[in-house]
Amino acid sequence: MDFLKIAQAAKVASLEIANTETNLRNKALLKIADELEACKDEIFEANKADLNASAKFVEWGEMPKSVFNRLKLDNNKMRDMIQGIRDVAQLPDPINHKLLVRELDKDLILYKISCPIGVLGIIFEARPDVIAQISALAIKSANAVILKGGKEAKNTNKKIYEVITKALAKVKKFPKNVIQQVYTREDVGKMLDCDKYINLVIPRGGNSLVKFIKENTKIPVLGHADGICHIFVDESADLEMAEKIIIDAKTQYPSACNSVETLLIHGNFPYKEKLLAALQLAEIKLNFKPDNWAFEYGDKILAFKYVDTIEEAIQHINTYGSGHTDCIITRDAANGEKFMNKVDSAGVYMNASTRFADGFRYGFGAEVGISTNKTHARGPVGLEGLTIYKYKLIGSGQIVADYVNGDRKFTHKDLKH
Amino acid sequence: MDFLKIAQAAKVASLEIANTETNLRNKALLKIADELEACKDEIFEANKADLNASAKFVEWGEMPKSVFNRLKLDNNKMRDMIQGIRDVAQLPDPINHKLLVRELDKDLILYKISCPIGVLGIIFEARPDVIAQISALAIKSANAVILKGGKEAKNTNKKIYEVITKALAKVKKFPKNVIQQVYTREDVGKMLDCDKYINLVIPRGGNSLVKFIKENTKIPVLGHADGICHIFVDESADLEMAEKIIIDAKTQYPSACNSVETLLIHGNFPYKEKLLAALQLAEIKLNFKPDNWAFEYGDKILAFKYVDTIEEAIQHINTYGSGHTDCIITRDAANGEKFMNKVDSAGVYMNASTRFADGFRYGFGAEVGISTNKTHARGPVGLEGLTIYKYKLIGSGQIVADYVNGDRKFTHKDLKH
Repeated sequence: MDFLKIAQAAKVASLEIANTETNLRNKALLKIADELEACKDEIFEANKADLNASAKFVEWGEMPKSVFNRLKLDNNKMRDMIQGIRDVAQLPDPINHKLLVRELDKDLILYKISCPIGVLGIIFEARPDVIAQISALAIKSANAVILKGGKEAKNTNKKIYEVITKALAKVKKFPKNVIQQVYTREDVGKMLDCDKYINLVIPRGGNSLVKFIKENTKIPVLGHADGICHIFVDESADLEMAEKIIIDAKTQYPSACNSVETLLIHGNFPYKEKLLAALQLAEIKLNFKPDNWAFEYGDKILAFKYVDTIEEAIQHINTYGSGHTDCIITRDAANGEKFMNKVDSAGVYMNASTRFADGFRYGFGAEVGISTNKTHARGPVGLEGLTIYKYKLIGSGQIVADYVNGDRKFTHKDLKH
Repeated sequence: MDFLKIAQAAKVASLEIANTETNLRNKALLKIADELEACKDEIFEANKADLNASAKFVEWGEMPKSVFNRLKLDNNKMRDMIQGIRDVAQLPDPINHKLLVRELDKDLILYKISCPIGVLGIIFEARPDVIAQISALAIKSANAVILKGGKEAKNTNKKIYEVITKALAKVKKFPKNVIQQVYTREDVGKMLDCDKYINLVIPRGGNSLVKFIKENTKIPVLGHADGICHIFVDESADLEMAEKIIIDAKTQYPSACNSVETLLIHGNFPYKEKLLAALQLAEIKLNFKPDNWAFEYGDKILAFKYVDTIEEAIQHINTYGSGHTDCIITRDAANGEKFMNKVDSAGVYMNASTRFADGFRYGFGAEVGISTNKTHARGPVGLEGLTIYKYKLIGSGQIVADYVNGDRKFTHKDLKH
C-alpha cells in the first residue's frame, strides 16, 4: 500500500480517536490483551519462523546473540506484554484535563485542555513486544500510530499486528486505522519525510538507529541516542555507599542506557584505592583515561579519572555527557545542590544509582522512552509525553477592538477547576 | 568571529545564567531598560541610517511600505520597547518551580524542576525592537540567545545590541555572552546546522522566512508559518454577533496571523445575504470559492463558501487550515462543543473573535510567539515556552537491585510542595 495513503488514513484516524471516550479506549486495550492471550500459539509460531531465519546469522556472526535474545518471545515475555497492556488500561486518562481555566473577561473563558499529539511514527528494532506496548500507549493517549518493526521480526510483527487489528475490529465504534504497520526500509524514509501528517517520531532501538533517525527527519524525535551517564565521587563520599551505587549502576544491567559509563573521583577522596579494588572485585574493568570519553560501553567496563574539584567534574560531564542521568556521591549537601544545579542533564542525582532513571521507577505507570531533548519532554517519559494541549475560548460575542480602544478591560482571573 | 566560537560561548553562558538568582536577572533587565532610555538618540540616529538606506528600495518598489514602517523606530515604539522590558522584569520567574515532588521510597525523593532550555537562536526580520523584547524574555527565563536580524535594520540592530551589551557589562556577576548577535546570511545557515549547541530556533517574521527555517533545520522551531484562520457561522448564529466578530477578526488588524481568512456559512443560516451585505459595507472583499483555500490574504479579503453541515465545516478547516485559531459562531452549545473538540487547532473558539489568540490577551504577561506545533508549546507561548524541566533525585544510597529483587518496594507518594 502507498505510504501516503497510510499516513492520510492515520491522520483521519487521529482526529477520530481524539474524540473517543476513556471507556472505549480502555475497552479496546482489554480486547487486545484478550485476543493476544487467545492467539498466543499462533504468535509463538510466527516468532519461531523469525528465530529459525535468524539462527544462521547468529552462527555466521552477523547477528549478535543479544539481538537474537530480544527477538525471542517466550512465555514470560508474552505474559508481561499482555499484563502491560492491561496495566495501561488501568492508568488515568491523560487527555481532556483542564490545565488552566481563566476568565479573560465576563463571559469570556479560556480553557487549556490536554489533548493527543496526533500521529506517531514508531520505528523499532528486534523486540516484537514493542508493538503491543506502543500500540497500547498510543490508544490510551488517543493518538494514531504507524509502526515499522525490524526485518528480523517480520513474521512476529505481522502476526501481532494482525491480532491487534482483529481485536480492534471487534470493539464497536472504535475508529479504523488507529494502528497501522509498514514493513519496508523504503517506508522508513517516507515516514521520516512525512512531516505533513506525522507529528512525532519515536525510535525504539540502539544508538545507531536513533542517530540515523535524528539526522534524517524534520519531525520532532522523542528519545535518546547515547546514554553516557556519570558518577562523581566527591571527597566527602561514604566509601560503602559509593561502592554499592557504582556496582549497581554498572552491573545491574550493563547494556541499559541509564548504566554508568564514566567514574570521576575527587583526588582528595581518601579511600580511592579501596573503592577501585572493590569495583574490580565486582568484575568491573576499569579503563583509566580512555581516548574517547563519550563512548557507551554497555558492558562491565568503566572509564575513570581523578578530578581536582567538583567544578572539573561538572565541566567534564557537561562536555562529554549525553544529558541523560548523572550522579554525585557526597556527604556535603551544598556540593550535592551545586552538582544537581550545574549539571545540564535530564536526571541529576545525589546518592542514588543512575539506574533509577526509568518511567516505572518514577511512578509514571508506563514509559514511552527516555528523552534527552531540551524541548517537549525530558527524562523518562510517561503518557503525558504523548499529549499536548489546545486552547478553547468560549465567549459571548467579544471582539478585540473593544479592548484595544479601551472600552473593555481584561480581568485575567484564574478560576478553580 | 567564527560562528562555532559564538555558539560555544553561548552554551557556556547558558550554563552560567541557568544558575543565576531571579534578582540578578531582573536587575539586568532594568539596567537594559535604563541604558536604552539613556541612549535613545544614538539609536534613533542608527535607525535613520537604515531608513535612509531603505528609502530608495521603497521608491523602486523593492521594499513594501509595510516593511519600511516596521523598520522605523519612533518615540512610541521606543517607549513601548523600554516599557516591555520593565514589564518582563515584573513577571514571576518561570524557572526553579517544583512541578512535582514525589517520594519514591523512604529518603529517596524525586523533584521535577522547571529550568531553562539552553541556547535559543532567534532569526527576525525588519523589526529592530524584537532584539530588546527577545533578549528580555531570554534573560528572564535564564536562556542564552544568538540573534540574527534583518539586513535592512543592520545599523539599528548593531546599536541596540551595543547598548544591551554595555548595560549587561555594568551588572555585577551577570554572565558574559548571554546575548550575542550575528549579522550575515551565512551565519543563518550555520545557526540552523548547529544542533549541537542551539536547542530551539525562534523565527520572528513573515511566512516565507518561517517556512525556510522549518525546511532547513533539525533544531526544534517554535512558531508558525501560516495563519489560515476560519470562522464558521452555524445555522443558529446570532446575525449581529456574527457581523461584529467577523468584522473584528478581519479588519481590526488584517495582516495579523490571527486574522480570519476564510468564512464558512451554514447553508441554512437564514440571514446569509444580510451578513454578506454587512461585511461588504465594512469594506471586506468577499472571494467566493477561491482556487486556493490555504491562502493568507493579510488584507481585507475573505474567502467564503456555504457548507451543508457542521461536519463539512470541521473537515474543511482540518484540511485547509493551519492549526492556528478557528471559531464557530452559534447559539447551539452542543455544536460549539463538537466544533471545539473536533477542530485540530491550537485555538478553538466559540463566539469570540480569532484576534484574541495572543499571549497578552491570554494573560501570559509576555509573548514569545504563537506556535502551531503539536509538541512542546502550542498556541500563544509565554515565558513557560522557554523552559523545560530536569529531574533531581536525592537518595541516601539506594540501588536498583534491591527493588528488582523485591527486597524493597517503591512507595510513589506525591508530597506537597
